[in-house]
Amino acid sequence: MRYVAGLDGGGTKTAVTVAEESGRVVHRFTAGPLNLNGQDEASVKATLHEIAANVGHVCEGGLAACVAMAVGAAGISNPTVSGRLTEGLREGGFAGRLVLVGDHETALWGAHEGPRGMILIAGTGSIAYGRNADGTVHRAGGFGHLIDDEGSGYSIGRDLLSAVVRASDGREAATVVTELVYARLGLSTVQELVGFVYAKERNKADIAALAPLLSAACEAGDASALRIAERNALALVDTASAVAEALGLAESGELALLGSVLLQSSQVRAAFKAGMAARHPRLRCIDARRDAAHGAMLLALSELRGVSAVRE
Amino acid sequence: MRYVAGLDGGGTKTAVTVAEESGRVVHRFTAGPLNLNGQDEASVKATLHEIAANVGHVCEGGLAACVAMAVGAAGISNPTVSGRLTEGLREGGFAGRLVLVGDHETALWGAHEGPRGMILIAGTGSIAYGRNADGTVHRAGGFGHLIDDEGSGYSIGRDLLSAVVRASDGREAATVVTELVYARLGLSTVQELVGFVYAKERNKADIAALAPLLSAACEAGDASALRIAERNALALVDTASAVAEALGLAESGELALLGSVLLQSSQVRAAFKAGMAARHPRLRCIDARRDAAHGAMLLALSELRGVSAVRE
Repeated sequence: MRYVAGLDGGGTKTAVTVAEESGRVVHRFTAGPLNLNGQDEASVKATLHEIAANVGHVCEGGLAACVAMAVGAAGISNPTVSGRLTEGLREGGFAGRLVLVGDHETALWGAHEGPRGMILIAGTGSIAYGRNADGTVHRAGGFGHLIDDEGSGYSIGRDLLSAVVRASDGREAATVVTELVYARLGLSTVQELVGFVYAKERNKADIAALAPLLSAACEAGDASALRIAERNALALVDTASAVAEALGLAESGELALLGSVLLQSSQVRAAFKAGMAARHPRLRCIDARRDAAHGAMLLALSELRGVSAVRE
Repeated sequence: MRYVAGLDGGGTKTAVTVAEESGRVVHRFTAGPLNLNGQDEASVKATLHEIAANVGHVCEGGLAACVAMAVGAAGISNPTVSGRLTEGLREGGFAGRLVLVGDHETALWGAHEGPRGMILIAGTGSIAYGRNADGTVHRAGGFGHLIDDEGSGYSIGRDLLSAVVRASDGREAATVVTELVYARLGLSTVQELVGFVYAKERNKADIAALAPLLSAACEAGDASALRIAERNALALVDTASAVAEALGLAESGELALLGSVLLQSSQVRAAFKAGMAARHPRLRCIDARRDAAHGAMLLALSELRGVSAVRE
């Protein structure tokens, strides 16, 4: 019996799916994070060794029976990152075929159970990506929180904070966002809020963590919150639309919606779908069929079968 | 003969104006920066000692004849900052009355040759500030580059960079902003641009330094650039309008326009004035009558005369 494995390496955990050559899933598990730019060498290696050992345990015939592995992770196009990843898995005893791709690629494979289709991810950041029947790929967005990523959790968190300061000096009407943000952060003045935002230790995840407040504010009918939901949703329409048009899929494609903002903010999701329907009435928005670890497993399988659909 | 001095302390230089008690200016000079949060203790002290010595040289009767000094600087409400400033000037031999205020206060005094009126500053950051005949003050904007300061040089620089990445993936039409930004930064790909933006050593002044490119792009009739100018100008209208309305000056006030964006970007200035005229047709936009060092000198003079108009 031969096996394949798919890894979805993220900043908080790595999800792993192991399957038989037939495609039948035999095991799923999670291990530590694979944040290959930020994390210390030793803990990344330990995680990779642990994954290799666990894969070996569930394959009849041990790790040698796992003949292909695909790994999706952010920043993997960096040669240092891919080198460290390869080294860690080889040291862990994995000797099969290894494919390393960006995490948007494994998300696409998972969402569509294969290499074709489109995805829109709006989590801490935002990005759209897709591949058409010709094998052409296109990506839009994802250029980071400072100059891009509208529609992301970071962008929504920043917009909520901006609404608080704008309401504080009369540029906007009073908004329930103020009390929601103050309650979440344990603050009571705009000076404290500014102290929070510009504190040295603050990072983009802290700002993105405020995004879930948008739903409560929208449900209260707050005008400022509804504008934020609408603006971010329309930015996501631009992003997804750019991919659909570049790939010639605007009239026939399927777009899977992924990421915490699209999955958890019903207002952003609804406004996005309405905006997308207005622009591309025949494009279908769907839920992801499988997760990215399953996608990575399918990618490993296609490599094994010599399809090798992915060459970016 | 008694004298007063006004200091406008900035991140690149400190401008000083010395006047007789009658208000007649006798000397102007510049010294080193007074960036009291970022700079090392020793160089700030040296600058303050040098200023005290120079003031002493131009006053008949020496430094003792200078009986009041006002200093405007960013971040001066911080007690550590004001303490260091006071100490430096006292050590330098200044024994007269000392008034420390934010730099928007001395800008207001300079722009209107007195404590009443409104200013809008759009430089690296953006802020509006004013005081009415009752002595009521109001401030809008100025909450920093991450969540506020639309209409500032930083905001425009960020919007230009955003336009480049949005054009790169088809979210926007091609724009001349791309070639202007690449030429200025010596880059040729969007990947290099992302490397520039997220480099560890990058700061907000680096981003704001791109703002002057907006004019050339607007003059070329570029749609993306014209949208950026319009959007930032309208944000500045919101900011100035909040102050005018809070002070009851929307129908009768004078607003002085200050800062590199309003003084150097003719498109932003024109769009701002048009937007303001539409919202408040009777409010007058003017040029600053005097600079902030002159404003600080006038404030020192009013303190000497016991008017003490400023107590924030």
